[in-house]
Amino acid sequence: MFNPWPEAGMPLDQVATPMPVIDEDRLAANIARAQRYVEAHGKVFRPHIKTHKIAAIARQQLQAGAVGINCQKISEAEVFADAGFDDILITYNILGAAKLARLRALNERIGRLAVVADSATVVEGLAGTFEAGRPLTVLVECDTGGRRCGVQTPEDAAALAEKIAAAPGLRFAGILTYPATGGAERVEAFIVRTMDLLAEKDIACPVRSNGGSPDLFSAHLVPSATEHRAGTYVYNDRSMVRAGHCTAGDLAMHILATVVSRPAPGRAVLDCGSKALTSDLLGFSDYGMIEGFEGARIVSLSEEHAVVDLKDVTGVFPGVGERVRVVPNHTCVVSNLFDRMVFHRGGVVTRVEAVDARGTVW
Amino acid sequence: MFNPWPEAGMPLDQVATPMPVIDEDRLAANIARAQRYVEAHGKVFRPHIKTHKIAAIARQQLQAGAVGINCQKISEAEVFADAGFDDILITYNILGAAKLARLRALNERIGRLAVVADSATVVEGLAGTFEAGRPLTVLVECDTGGRRCGVQTPEDAAALAEKIAAAPGLRFAGILTYPATGGAERVEAFIVRTMDLLAEKDIACPVRSNGGSPDLFSAHLVPSATEHRAGTYVYNDRSMVRAGHCTAGDLAMHILATVVSRPAPGRAVLDCGSKALTSDLLGFSDYGMIEGFEGARIVSLSEEHAVVDLKDVTGVFPGVGERVRVVPNHTCVVSNLFDRMVFHRGGVVTRVEAVDARGTVW
Repeated sequence: MFNPWPEAGMPLDQVATPMPVIDEDRLAANIARAQRYVEAHGKVFRPHIKTHKIAAIARQQLQAGAVGINCQKISEAEVFADAGFDDILITYNILGAAKLARLRALNERIGRLAVVADSATVVEGLAGTFEAGRPLTVLVECDTGGRRCGVQTPEDAAALAEKIAAAPGLRFAGILTYPATGGAERVEAFIVRTMDLLAEKDIACPVRSNGGSPDLFSAHLVPSATEHRAGTYVYNDRSMVRAGHCTAGDLAMHILATVVSRPAPGRAVLDCGSKALTSDLLGFSDYGMIEGFEGARIVSLSEEHAVVDLKDVTGVFPGVGERVRVVPNHTCVVSNLFDRMVFHRGGVVTRVEAVDARGTVW
Repeated sequence: MFNPWPEAGMPLDQVATPMPVIDEDRLAANIARAQRYVEAHGKVFRPHIKTHKIAAIARQQLQAGAVGINCQKISEAEVFADAGFDDILITYNILGAAKLARLRALNERIGRLAVVADSATVVEGLAGTFEAGRPLTVLVECDTGGRRCGVQTPEDAAALAEKIAAAPGLRFAGILTYPATGGAERVEAFIVRTMDLLAEKDIACPVRSNGGSPDLFSAHLVPSATEHRAGTYVYNDRSMVRAGHCTAGDLAMHILATVVSRPAPGRAVLDCGSKALTSDLLGFSDYGMIEGFEGARIVSLSEEHAVVDLKDVTGVFPGVGERVRVVPNHTCVVSNLFDRMVFHRGGVVTRVEAVDARGTVW
């Protein structure tokens, strides 16, 4: 077998397509900017590794000042624990005997492990697994408008916190939200009311964790939050530009692609299909933005082809064999498709990193 | 690190979620049924491995009578050549010095390799790479209504065939189409007209390759086609049921998932997000079908969560910690997310196969 991955020093225009590539300087700037911002507002920052799944990037994030990392699966946390990470929050309801046994083993080998819970069933599973000698830290997940998981009211949050605090093997540490929608005022009100209810019960609530890249630079609008979590900010993508979180100059990931066909007037076909870009629309009506050709619309994807409508293109679109760069709608799912990630600076490959936690299944 | 993959003999209800699983009997039946059908209509069958990317399944397909395999990337073909496959068609325009060099190396080590071309640029690249001593077989890709790649008219097909036939290092073998839409009559008319034009030029056109799982059981409506290619038929999915290609009883892939939250009335959350199901809608308005709960709609996915609207569910939907089985909209992209695939029969795991060609990048 040939090695399909480029070596450091290879010019980017010789890297085989389709291939996502990461701009080192933009990556470093994104990491620094987010850290500075969250710190400036008196909070700790906990990056979510789901976006990159790469230990080397998480180390850059810790070196910049992050307090620890955020994972979404036990298997991701295990990979990062193996890589030496010692402060991990898994923002997921862990259920079932097999996963609970693994969670217990993980808690025994790293310094700080925490999970979330949003129901009595989840708390009971955790309470039956952990003991006072080596307790597990648990946060109550709250739904402040994201309409995914989470208890619905401050009263429910306080009741679940009481249940956690009463379990000998669990340590209640605070509350957490992922407010994809709903607004900062609603998040702040939910947190403040929950803290009041907990204070009445004499339960300490030191951690109030807020999250999301779209809300990163408005984290100061939730003054009661002590922590912010974000993933996508590290690479950024088309959805982050739309959200006003960043500009095109902050986009660290592009997908290198080749025009493989110009079969008919007004139609081009690229070699980046749904197995390179994924089908994530995130509210867009097309599957990515072709840099320098805003009028070009990726109107459909098959697995290894992207069909581009050139109707509204001004200027000359590249011909067969020529290359373009695509800004993905959503970086996190692109990372998840590739076993390694190629980095570059000034048009030259700098390093190729294994996507350490890709393909972990639990 | 723990091993997250089940062993043969494990009951399916102990397999960790989210996990796609393959029903051995349905898989074997799907393979046999397609092969029988295509053979009965006097054509050869060439399965596309993109759906499963697993050498062991491709061997089952060859044992059933398939003439060879179809790949979409050089890197996939290399993996299957390493696994002993000797008749491979790559239905892709291969461009650029690096890929052409690899294609040449591949052509030297397997018995039968063929690719497609739909433009003079692609043919010129191939013609400059191969020599008469070890020529490459090339088919002309035709657009018969799929509106992806392919020459637009029989006249263009014949002209490109002539160019291929004139290149010392290339061997023109025929024409190929992927008719996602357009209808059998249009495909047949395109093929017949192209054959007439080629006959006038004294160019033989022994291979007329048609494709697609949705069109598999209407392959007889294109009598001039000598070969049919299909991928999805091997597992089947929700889109294949909708297309009338199969029934729910032919679905070989399900995603095992766990209910991780019931945060509010009318809402459940599963642990199969876009990193398990993908965001492929394929024309549906939701992200998969929950077996036994047709009224339940997977209305949104985040990376590790599926949000289910229970408004129209009749009966009792499973609670936190209980399990469901999801029929994916599109199997091929689900396969591409997992490093291994779990097989079962009668509720018990039979084998776990590496997804050999997953993560190959070119």
